[in-house]
Amino acid sequence: MTDKPTLAVVGATGAVGAVMLQILSQHADVWGEIRLLASPRSAGRKLVVRGVETEVLALSEEALEGVDVAMFDVPDQVAAQWAPVAAAKGAVVVDNSAAFRMDPDVPLVVPEVNPHAVRVRPRSIVSSPNCTTLSMIVAVGALHAEFGLAGLVVSSYQAVSGEGRAGVDALRDQLSLVAGTELGTNPGDVRRAVGDDTGPFAAPIALNVVPWAGTLMDDGWSSEELKVRAESRKILDRPGLPVSVTCVRVPVLTTHSLAVHARFENEVSVERAHEILATAPGVVLFDNPAAGEFPTPADVVGTDPTWVGRVRRSLDDPTALELFVCGDNLRKGSALNTAQIAELVAAEIRTA
Amino acid sequence: MTDKPTLAVVGATGAVGAVMLQILSQHADVWGEIRLLASPRSAGRKLVVRGVETEVLALSEEALEGVDVAMFDVPDQVAAQWAPVAAAKGAVVVDNSAAFRMDPDVPLVVPEVNPHAVRVRPRSIVSSPNCTTLSMIVAVGALHAEFGLAGLVVSSYQAVSGEGRAGVDALRDQLSLVAGTELGTNPGDVRRAVGDDTGPFAAPIALNVVPWAGTLMDDGWSSEELKVRAESRKILDRPGLPVSVTCVRVPVLTTHSLAVHARFENEVSVERAHEILATAPGVVLFDNPAAGEFPTPADVVGTDPTWVGRVRRSLDDPTALELFVCGDNLRKGSALNTAQIAELVAAEIRTA
Ligand SMILES: NC(=O)c1ccc[n+]([C@@H]2O[C@H](COP(=O)([O-])OP(=O)(O)OC[C@H]3O[C@@H](n4cnc5c(N)ncnc54)[C@H](OP(=O)(O)O)[C@@H]3O)[C@@H](O)[C@H]2O)c1
Ligand SMILES: NC(=O)c1ccc[n+]([C@@H]2O[C@H](COP(=O)([O-])OP(=O)(O)OC[C@H]3O[C@@H](n4cnc5c(N)ncnc54)[C@H](OP(=O)(O)O)[C@@H]3O)[C@@H](O)[C@H]2O)c1
Repeated sequence: MTDKPTLAVVGATGAVGAVMLQILSQHADVWGEIRLLASPRSAGRKLVVRGVETEVLALSEEALEGVDVAMFDVPDQVAAQWAPVAAAKGAVVVDNSAAFRMDPDVPLVVPEVNPHAVRVRPRSIVSSPNCTTLSMIVAVGALHAEFGLAGLVVSSYQAVSGEGRAGVDALRDQLSLVAGTELGTNPGDVRRAVGDDTGPFAAPIALNVVPWAGTLMDDGWSSEELKVRAESRKILDRPGLPVSVTCVRVPVLTTHSLAVHARFENEVSVERAHEILATAPGVVLFDNPAAGEFPTPADVVGTDPTWVGRVRRSLDDPTALELFVCGDNLRKGSALNTAQIAELVAAEIRTA
Repeated sequence: MTDKPTLAVVGATGAVGAVMLQILSQHADVWGEIRLLASPRSAGRKLVVRGVETEVLALSEEALEGVDVAMFDVPDQVAAQWAPVAAAKGAVVVDNSAAFRMDPDVPLVVPEVNPHAVRVRPRSIVSSPNCTTLSMIVAVGALHAEFGLAGLVVSSYQAVSGEGRAGVDALRDQLSLVAGTELGTNPGDVRRAVGDDTGPFAAPIALNVVPWAGTLMDDGWSSEELKVRAESRKILDRPGLPVSVTCVRVPVLTTHSLAVHARFENEVSVERAHEILATAPGVVLFDNPAAGEFPTPADVVGTDPTWVGRVRRSLDDPTALELFVCGDNLRKGSALNTAQIAELVAAEIRTA
């Protein structure tokens, strides 16, 4: 045990934290001590990780003592305050929040796409991207490596668990409310059944789609749309990449889907795209419509990879591909990517 | 009555036919006799139109005698066989099926976009577009008239009633099946609850999205995706327009939504786009995210116009706009557009 690094999971009691504890239990035995931290509210709770019941500690300077790697799965403001404290104590921080993603001194890492970036971290902080970016970037990155990306137009079909527990509860509650009514095609039917409380969404989400995610930014853009653009550019190291995104919430529990129109610098072929995607680490190619094979959230949920189907070359542009991509927003979209980054750091520490 | 044209509604007993009878009852008093036709199976049934109980006749040469305008709301093969018969009897046919849409001698008409096209009809047949095309083309056409369209990338969020009654039944049945189970984030949960019978869809549609509509065509494209491309080009009279479409079915009963990335020949501004959309006939501009205003199917269902929101200028291309568009697939998407075309023809007949 002594040569293995000490890990702190900050936010072990949250939605992402819960999936993280599963992943830590399934993955190879990378870590020495695993310390579970959360707010003082959770101090003393017991959680199981790697089969061992472990007491949750309140986040404090003391609790960060001797930590080699600290994963942060907490709200932005908590990460903004505490990640620098953990770094000052000597830990490498892997942060799942939005607090540091666009900081030029913090690398934004997807291990399948830009693993090298993890090594240059002047603030000892590494960020993990937003779940919507993560749901497509592994597939897009693999194609970029061969064809050279020239632009993206993305429309999302985002699951409610991207809004955490509150999003899941809202969809479940609304479904039970609409189930009891005989909904026709009259204006107001769904609104009337659901009532005024639409939970974390701006409109009813049962039997509906809502073209909004995040907060309002300049010129009518949502924060989620701008994150996908800025993060894709940073991860692929293409600061000027044209990226247009429309984020839409759909009544799916978990797994984000994206319709991606990707333009490249060079001519593309579906055959070569298939070869690349079939062999890319972290990608499952599932693309045989004749056999009814294309990814859907119902089939992808609970799995680690990015699933890709509906690969077509644009009929009017030999340099463009259309893809339909699905990724579990709670696995690769958050906890899994954070765990993978932490494992890269751990390997580095051990070989140092 | 004598100077008003005689109308035949062929397919009066179908899903589109039912909405058509509502529309005929609501619209101005354009028609003299309204004759209701369907298959021999329905002969003798009584339906109400304009408040009058009317007996359904079996479609036959005799039943088409003396008809000035014949609306066809029947399957493709029935239209292919009978529309030329009605035309030979002297009627102008307005066909809602796909049978003639791409025939160069048949105009494809959206009254708000290309009303002039209705006048040139060598076969005496006029076609009405597919519901997915119709859900966006009025808004896109209005912007095209000012800025000159240079390309479209479209992702759809299509309602189950696009697959008729069978689609609606499948979603209702599946929702009641998943409602009883405690769905987690385990692979297979939705599949297990729904079972093998997914109705007219290639995968479960409850708590899922399915990236498929129509039949498989060359190179992985679905027929629905190719229809939107070919029909948009024909309606806008831009034979070479680049159009990339991904069609996705979502668990919504009625009203199709589309995320549209539209490139133009000229620089665009959101201000001017707002002015155009706010005054375009058949369009409702609903675009104030600060007040939670953007179109969703729950608010649009049952209404006639095309609703447009989330209007943004692409951050990396001053000639491109992003839009989120909703239209009721059973109203503007089928019956209403057919009724509007028939009214154009009726006006022509009366002034002749
Ligand atoms: N849900 C997703 O799909 C997703 C995807 C990617 C990234 N993320 C990001 O991951 C982070 C966690 O998200 P989540 O969905 O897991 O949120 P969550 O369920 O609300 O969990 C929040 C966690 O932060 C802890 N916490 C809150 N305030 C704290 C404080 N002052 N000191 C220490 N710990 C504190 C909570 O501990 P207590 O239980 O003690 O309150 C809990 O463990 C967020 O930044 C989120 O944006 C989420
Ligand atoms: N649903 C949509 O959103 C939508 C949108 C745009 C366009 N469309 C098109 O509109 C057309 C009708 O669609 P729908 O959804 O209304 O279909 P539907 O509900 O199946 O109705 C079909 C109609 O056609 C009649 N019919 C069938 N075979 C016939 C025959 N041999 N002779 C005479 N009449 C016959 C039926 O009469 P019986 O009742 O006697 O069988 C019924 O009235 C189709 O071409 C469809 O592609 C549908």
